Amino acid sequence: EYEYDDEGDLIICRLTKNRRVTVTDFRGKTLVSIREYYRKEGKELPTSKGISLTAEQWSSFKKNVPAIEKAIRKMESRLN
Amino acid sequence: EYEYDDEGDLIICRLTKNRRVTVTDFRGKTLVSIREYYRKEGKELPTSKGISLTAEQWSSFKKNVPAIEKAIRKMESRLN
Repeated sequence: EYEYDDEGDLIICRLTKNRRVTVTDFRGKTLVSIREYYRKEGKELPTSKGISLTAEQWSSFKKNVPAIEKAIRKMESRLN
Repeated sequence: EYEYDDEGDLIICRLTKNRRVTVTDFRGKTLVSIREYYRKEGKELPTSKGISLTAEQWSSFKKNVPAIEKAIRKMESRLN
């Protein structure tokens, strides 16, 4: 049921054709990455366009999801 | 109650001293960014290390938060 990429990272989802969310074990640390990839010689490789969060940063990020939602709603109501 | 950065973007939270989550209006489109900043001449400026999600990408990402959580738990239970 799980899909892994060419680097052996677990693909959680694809946000666009080239952007994906992965969960990786990097030297014993779990990282959550949101990153762009490019295709080279049949392989999909990560670009520097993206960010990898440590478990601690992810936990802090996740707590702020409702605040992000609220800010988006506020911004969009101002734009319309 | 809201904090804005030197670029006028709404700061949702700081994940580390140099990493922050912002919500921005970019030419009428709302973007959610997770990005590293650096300090230059007293100003904090964005680096290319990060990613900016459109509202559509954010929505797709948000739906996958439980899957990310599940993958982290799975990975950490395998490591311990």
